[in-house]
Amino acid sequence: MSHSIRIKLSPERISSLQELQTLTHTSFKDISLLHLAFVHRSFANEDSDRYLSDNERLEFLGDSVLGILAAEYLYKSLPKGKEGILAKLKSKMVSAPAIAKLSRHYLFPEFLLLGKGEKEKGEVNLNLQADCFEAFLGALYLDQGLNSCRIFLTPHFQKMEKAIENAEETKDYKTILQEFCQKKWKKLPEYVLLKEEGPDHEKEFLVSVSCEQYFQTSGDGKNKRRAEQMAAKAALQFLKLL
Amino acid sequence: MSHSIRIKLSPERISSLQELQTLTHTSFKDISLLHLAFVHRSFANEDSDRYLSDNERLEFLGDSVLGILAAEYLYKSLPKGKEGILAKLKSKMVSAPAIAKLSRHYLFPEFLLLGKGEKEKGEVNLNLQADCFEAFLGALYLDQGLNSCRIFLTPHFQKMEKAIENAEETKDYKTILQEFCQKKWKKLPEYVLLKEEGPDHEKEFLVSVSCEQYFQTSGDGKNKRRAEQMAAKAALQFLKLL
Repeated sequence: MSHSIRIKLSPERISSLQELQTLTHTSFKDISLLHLAFVHRSFANEDSDRYLSDNERLEFLGDSVLGILAAEYLYKSLPKGKEGILAKLKSKMVSAPAIAKLSRHYLFPEFLLLGKGEKEKGEVNLNLQADCFEAFLGALYLDQGLNSCRIFLTPHFQKMEKAIENAEETKDYKTILQEFCQKKWKKLPEYVLLKEEGPDHEKEFLVSVSCEQYFQTSGDGKNKRRAEQMAAKAALQFLKLL
Repeated sequence: MSHSIRIKLSPERISSLQELQTLTHTSFKDISLLHLAFVHRSFANEDSDRYLSDNERLEFLGDSVLGILAAEYLYKSLPKGKEGILAKLKSKMVSAPAIAKLSRHYLFPEFLLLGKGEKEKGEVNLNLQADCFEAFLGALYLDQGLNSCRIFLTPHFQKMEKAIENAEETKDYKTILQEFCQKKWKKLPEYVLLKEEGPDHEKEFLVSVSCEQYFQTSGDGKNKRRAEQMAAKAALQFLKLL
């Protein structure tokens, strides 16, 4: 079945789409699919042939492409992860803010064709950013198959997973400690940076945390957040809460 | 990366799994994946090594496999379908009742290993039926890739799409006509079967619909529902509502 869309593209648009392929390290067999992924409904509405010419169908497909690749990535990367953990991580990795960030990384909003009304609003909103990323994935899937999409997404999933892990860890220990101190002593724990040393790419931070005279523990890490997190963890252990 | 799970299966289980492959027209390279797809948490809980040995992770993966194949099927089968229509059809095609029906079609519930408590409840509930179907898809995807899953699912998607279309059509015209008659004349339309002829595989039905003296129209179809639907459509056309 051919998915080719009979559209005559202007030389400017073709050159734009070539730039887009360079940015994404892709090479489309059918460039009209790539074009379509960046046609917003508001632009297509100014056209007569609406239903063949906006990116919503590709976005519908791309959403599922993103879903299976995120699920597969987590299934393989966390061989002992429980289903609940995988589902929670997946929902963060495919969330609109996470996807919109990738969209901006590739400058996708700049290639999106918008109608006059939408253009006048100024900046492309987060949902539109995320939508055209999904539409791009849908186009890549149709043009080149699942493995090309996998190659394209995997490095991003790796970064996301790391970022989420870091955020989770930090949030968890610090939040637990803060809630405990507030409840027990009506005080907040205080973090102090004790030391910061080493060259830029290999910095080591040492942080202490205390709450009045009740406890004082410390922790280290390759950034301040991580060191605070380790200090909070030590405090929780000291307080027999871990 | 290997997904093989080191499990020693009993000769009875192996023979069961062979039956399952015959029923599904599949042939697994790694039979322990197929086994795992049919291990419910309640059964694994009676084991010590819970997290390597139930089907929830495979179900997590299989859910996305189902998602992308349903999306792709609809994208290609309805080249002019709007995103809203595709999304609506997809949600019906991947719904628990629809998937549980497929699960029963392949007798999956009979192969599911349940814990004692779950077994005592008697019949395997609809969600468990659907879950093991998704887990099976996850296992098939890991063992044989997306295309095997596509080949497995496509004929089912075709049937589902037809069934949904029929149900939708019937519901639409008949419901519209009924609501109109109730509102305008405080009466319900009446359907009468006028004729039923032809051999079993090629039956033709003729149905009339009327509401007091206001109108009488008829419609035919290869089953009674379809004929009623066509009669209602004719009535709506007669009443200038279509």
